[in-house]
Amino acid sequence: MSGTVSGTPGGLTWPLIEEARGRIAGKVNLTPILTSRTLDALSGARLSFKCENFQKGGAFKARGATNAVFALSETEARRGVATHSSGNHGAALARAAALRGIRAHVVMPDNTPQAKRAAVSRYGAEITWCAPTLAARESTVQKVIAATGATLIHPYDDLLVMAGQATAAMEFLEAAPDIDVLLVPVGGGGLLSGSAVAAKTLKPSIRVIGVEPAGADDAARSLRAGRIVPNENPSTIADGLRATVGERPFAVIRRLVDEIVTVPDDAIVRAMRQLWEVLKIVVEPSAAVPYAALLDAPAALRSRRIGLIVSGGNLDLDHLPWGVPAST
Amino acid sequence: MSGTVSGTPGGLTWPLIEEARGRIAGKVNLTPILTSRTLDALSGARLSFKCENFQKGGAFKARGATNAVFALSETEARRGVATHSSGNHGAALARAAALRGIRAHVVMPDNTPQAKRAAVSRYGAEITWCAPTLAARESTVQKVIAATGATLIHPYDDLLVMAGQATAAMEFLEAAPDIDVLLVPVGGGGLLSGSAVAAKTLKPSIRVIGVEPAGADDAARSLRAGRIVPNENPSTIADGLRATVGERPFAVIRRLVDEIVTVPDDAIVRAMRQLWEVLKIVVEPSAAVPYAALLDAPAALRSRRIGLIVSGGNLDLDHLPWGVPAST
Repeated sequence: MSGTVSGTPGGLTWPLIEEARGRIAGKVNLTPILTSRTLDALSGARLSFKCENFQKGGAFKARGATNAVFALSETEARRGVATHSSGNHGAALARAAALRGIRAHVVMPDNTPQAKRAAVSRYGAEITWCAPTLAARESTVQKVIAATGATLIHPYDDLLVMAGQATAAMEFLEAAPDIDVLLVPVGGGGLLSGSAVAAKTLKPSIRVIGVEPAGADDAARSLRAGRIVPNENPSTIADGLRATVGERPFAVIRRLVDEIVTVPDDAIVRAMRQLWEVLKIVVEPSAAVPYAALLDAPAALRSRRIGLIVSGGNLDLDHLPWGVPAST
Repeated sequence: MSGTVSGTPGGLTWPLIEEARGRIAGKVNLTPILTSRTLDALSGARLSFKCENFQKGGAFKARGATNAVFALSETEARRGVATHSSGNHGAALARAAALRGIRAHVVMPDNTPQAKRAAVSRYGAEITWCAPTLAARESTVQKVIAATGATLIHPYDDLLVMAGQATAAMEFLEAAPDIDVLLVPVGGGGLLSGSAVAAKTLKPSIRVIGVEPAGADDAARSLRAGRIVPNENPSTIADGLRATVGERPFAVIRRLVDEIVTVPDDAIVRAMRQLWEVLKIVVEPSAAVPYAALLDAPAALRSRRIGLIVSGGNLDLDHLPWGVPAST
């Protein structure tokens, strides 16, 4: 086990998480937890899946975005909010802004899957397209903010967003307190950092493991280096996890996360398909990443009670990764 | 509204359904009910989905098969059970027999989807293949019974099976008593007949509508004719609904079901895709049939509180009906 919670690693405190829960109550779903004897038998462990694919907007991102939007002062709120996002955070911010009755500006890379574009549009946000690089995303959103006075709600490098994402693990541990290992996908690190603070506060003995695609393994490399080592050319089917871990999340992850595991894309695809076939849930590639870590079940995880956060269910059904031939 | 429950239409009584519930309690899942503001907006009604795709074995069939298997005497049970099934009933019977520790013999048409074959094998049943006609299915199962002394558990033309299937609507109405229209898929009629007795007993004012594929519209034709008019060459993507309605179910349906609606295959595919995209659940074509009836929302159903039974989630992910190109 890595460090326990004391002080304020990365500034993310337990009171911020409790406040987040109160603020977003009734505005996001209390998502169900699924279990399956078939998957238990396949993995040799006892698994619980916290299904954020059933969250509002189809992903956990509703939690952080809603918390950040409803924490704004009236004056700030009037000028709107802005962000850059490959999709789920953008849709979540658009939805939260619509709930509060304010404007949302979303900068999206032009390779964003169609299903995620549609979700952002549906909630009435204004979309600005940019090249699919972090530099282009950041410079474009700065232009939007300069023009509008909107408040930036970063997808993960933001304490209020991190506190909101933390509520998923909080609910999970409250409903399933016997979990002794928690597997969380890691992209920018908002969900993982929040989950680590929530889980280790509620259960100091729990082991928190981040799982990331081998093709975007900045969190693993950063943890080894002791500083953030960005993804240069992330290449993975898990489009929600291509971002490099943010500074505030990384400060938490260094102190509280026990291990980062990486999984190749072929394991992600197999994991995704098993979740569809056995659990009967639609999950996107990023959401299958934690379960992918269990496919060739490491001996250390056998017989453990493992909680997995299933992060989202938004994807193009026309472009499924197992190369589906047309039905005849 | 059609007739109310009095006497014993088709022999299916309320006490049989209550007994079924007690008998299968703890052996099948209490399945969740999902709602969606997005689908409410699309349909103009208020929808609740009873998700039998999350049932044991991935379909409502677990209810009837488990009831029938656990109602057997010790002497009968020792000789095993037999059935013919295009899949979900076969898997459900195999599972129920395994739970009771007895043998199951399942006769399957050789065009059964792979996912459904695998489910039957997984529970350890003995499979006998036959041609995909009702005549071949029935003669083959008679041979198996002659050889083994097994008890036939018919997929739908069986009071204990019908009573078991009825528990889905019973749970549904107890959890969502404000539903005023219930949409149920109809193949052999086991689910629809059971649902009609349960729903009209609990709520006499409810409207019960059976929905069937236009390419296997025997229930609609039979209701018009006042006698069973079999499907000659059923042609529909909804492989679970190709059977002709059975005698016992039909006796109930004639008396209690208000209407049979038929839907074309293209509507079934669109409905299935919307359920995947919006509800994030994996459902098979047959399970999308009731929702298909709402796609071009008939004015009579607008603003109503509509309950839909989502019957199952077993299908080949390699052969999705929207003709998916391989991802690149």
